[in-house]
Amino acid sequence: MIKKYYLLSPGPTPVPEDVLAEASKPIIHHRTSEFSDIFMEAIDGLKYTFQTKNDVFILTSSGTGAMETAIANTLSPADKVITINGGKFGERWGHICRAYGVNVKEITLGWGEPFSKAQLADELKVNPETKAVFTTLSETSSGTIYDIQGFGEVVDSTDAILVVDGISGIGATPCPMDEWKVDILISGSQKSFMIPPGLSYIAFSPKAWTLTEKSTLPKFYFDAKRAKKSLGKRTTPWTPAISLIIQQKKALEFIKSIGLENLIEHHRILGESTRAGVKAIGLELLSKSPGNIVTAIKVPEGLDGKEIVKTMQGKYKAYIAGAQDPHKGEFFRIAHLGYMGGFDVITSLSALEMTLSEVGYRFERGKAVKAAEEILEENWK
Amino acid sequence: MIKKYYLLSPGPTPVPEDVLAEASKPIIHHRTSEFSDIFMEAIDGLKYTFQTKNDVFILTSSGTGAMETAIANTLSPADKVITINGGKFGERWGHICRAYGVNVKEITLGWGEPFSKAQLADELKVNPETKAVFTTLSETSSGTIYDIQGFGEVVDSTDAILVVDGISGIGATPCPMDEWKVDILISGSQKSFMIPPGLSYIAFSPKAWTLTEKSTLPKFYFDAKRAKKSLGKRTTPWTPAISLIIQQKKALEFIKSIGLENLIEHHRILGESTRAGVKAIGLELLSKSPGNIVTAIKVPEGLDGKEIVKTMQGKYKAYIAGAQDPHKGEFFRIAHLGYMGGFDVITSLSALEMTLSEVGYRFERGKAVKAAEEILEENWK
Repeated sequence: MIKKYYLLSPGPTPVPEDVLAEASKPIIHHRTSEFSDIFMEAIDGLKYTFQTKNDVFILTSSGTGAMETAIANTLSPADKVITINGGKFGERWGHICRAYGVNVKEITLGWGEPFSKAQLADELKVNPETKAVFTTLSETSSGTIYDIQGFGEVVDSTDAILVVDGISGIGATPCPMDEWKVDILISGSQKSFMIPPGLSYIAFSPKAWTLTEKSTLPKFYFDAKRAKKSLGKRTTPWTPAISLIIQQKKALEFIKSIGLENLIEHHRILGESTRAGVKAIGLELLSKSPGNIVTAIKVPEGLDGKEIVKTMQGKYKAYIAGAQDPHKGEFFRIAHLGYMGGFDVITSLSALEMTLSEVGYRFERGKAVKAAEEILEENWK
Repeated sequence: MIKKYYLLSPGPTPVPEDVLAEASKPIIHHRTSEFSDIFMEAIDGLKYTFQTKNDVFILTSSGTGAMETAIANTLSPADKVITINGGKFGERWGHICRAYGVNVKEITLGWGEPFSKAQLADELKVNPETKAVFTTLSETSSGTIYDIQGFGEVVDSTDAILVVDGISGIGATPCPMDEWKVDILISGSQKSFMIPPGLSYIAFSPKAWTLTEKSTLPKFYFDAKRAKKSLGKRTTPWTPAISLIIQQKKALEFIKSIGLENLIEHHRILGESTRAGVKAIGLELLSKSPGNIVTAIKVPEGLDGKEIVKTMQGKYKAYIAGAQDPHKGEFFRIAHLGYMGGFDVITSLSALEMTLSEVGYRFERGKAVKAAEEILEENWK
């Protein structure tokens, strides 16, 4: 058999064929009106997906670079902040803040555990000097969605800003930046934006932007003021990843043609059918608030989680994701993100059924696929 | 006429067709042995071009990010450094150092003016507390080469480290890192490395690496220790620009098949023929120490430099570079860098002859091309 490779991870995600082809065109110079037109179209598309009137800046970096940009441009040493750590990416906010000498009050949650806006309001009450609250829209490590709308309501009534890592979430789950009063929203190219990794995106609300005037943390490559000044000239301060921006413009045309609402609905269907499938064969979700980006599934008692991932990836070339430290082997993650379709869900579940059968899990073969099919068919319009 | 586009700028540079095609392949996951093999082959190729036994780290950023990496990982606030500013890129070292609160002694040279190792030795004598000397191999803004070998001899006998921006120079002009005692060497993907922009490269000597233990400047995305730790596991700390790394591996195979020495010799021939061509029609070079990366040519008295660049770029689609601030209009720059060949030099000079004729410069038509042809033919083996 030809063993075809299926990319089913929560980033990188598959890139549409005609978007891949864009990168095979000859390179053009970035200080040209031809490139500026493409660049500004990409920015318009990003503003559309961020649902914001604010500028969106394109950085040549992975998402972590945009997270650092948020911190370095708004804070000063010893500023007090709250970070919500419910997994690898929430934890990263704390790591970056501490690297910059920022004073972090970290709220550590169990992976997959929810955190309510009332809890956040309480935290802000006892920490009235908080300059910023750092959180995550979709925590990729645990497949959990947080209540950004609620956090926005709570933080908006304080002097703090709300900074949201929307790297894997934007485009796949609702997060209208302006309506939900998000002050800094970031994302990355290799998720629902449907292009390879290498670009990250960041937008500042007027409230967040005023902090850039006071911030004394050092920055240069990630200096947002330089990015803003250059954007006024339809360009970037540093030589950007030209080919990726051209791909992003193309992918955003596709995203616009679908419509953001439909793209989010698409993810809802994929998420729901995946959850229905795994539940139908007796598996449990890790998250109490699962999102439509990636589904984290607990490894059934007595089975070897690493073996499941290894078989899925190695034998079936169904490239799902394992669990990250310190939870390696405890669960695995099936993504349904970006340019994945209904039959990618079926592929995941079918490969999972074959794998589980092989590792000795007792279940009724076919039930996962059947449950997913039913939801897909019902929504197939 | 079909007006073909010729990219003749010092970055981005043309990408070979089969390297472009690499980016149109489906995206693979970066945490796989398949990708790690590609990644490590790219690193081997980078070590070959850097002529070093040190690790070379691949960053997803433009070259400016690698410059910041050099500073943020080796220095602490108020450390004293020397920067050699002979143009836009030498100047940038000072800008980044100041952004981080480093104490800068800036040596400001006229654009195109040389700076000797004896002068550097004198500066180090009067500034014995200097922690680092920042300089440029090939100053792209003025087409000037500096004496890195000499600087290496001088700095090696002190406690300071020598940090070299080799962004446009590596691969095109000699700079054997270990032999010349360069402590930090950086480069970028969109120059002689023959791929699109989006990746930068940095290597530390053992002497430079010891400084990373003491440095207290904040860093996270550009943390070299994290990069080193990840490299030990054949990966990167953050999701890298996968498609660009795959392209870089392919382009490095091509570079290795040519051989570094031959690639440098190739650039010598292109540089020499370009210089001979422009001199043959009475034009003057800006630089007293011109390199083989880009040739900066003074605008003849009475002519409009901006008009020359506009005609070259707009009418003839020969995308050469103008002069940067504060010297706009005073000179223009023809690159002969990376995947450009002998007939790209002829194209540049032919477009220049047509342009100069149009703007009223008096010269004997054909002499520039003739002079370049003679050198190219003589070396055509």
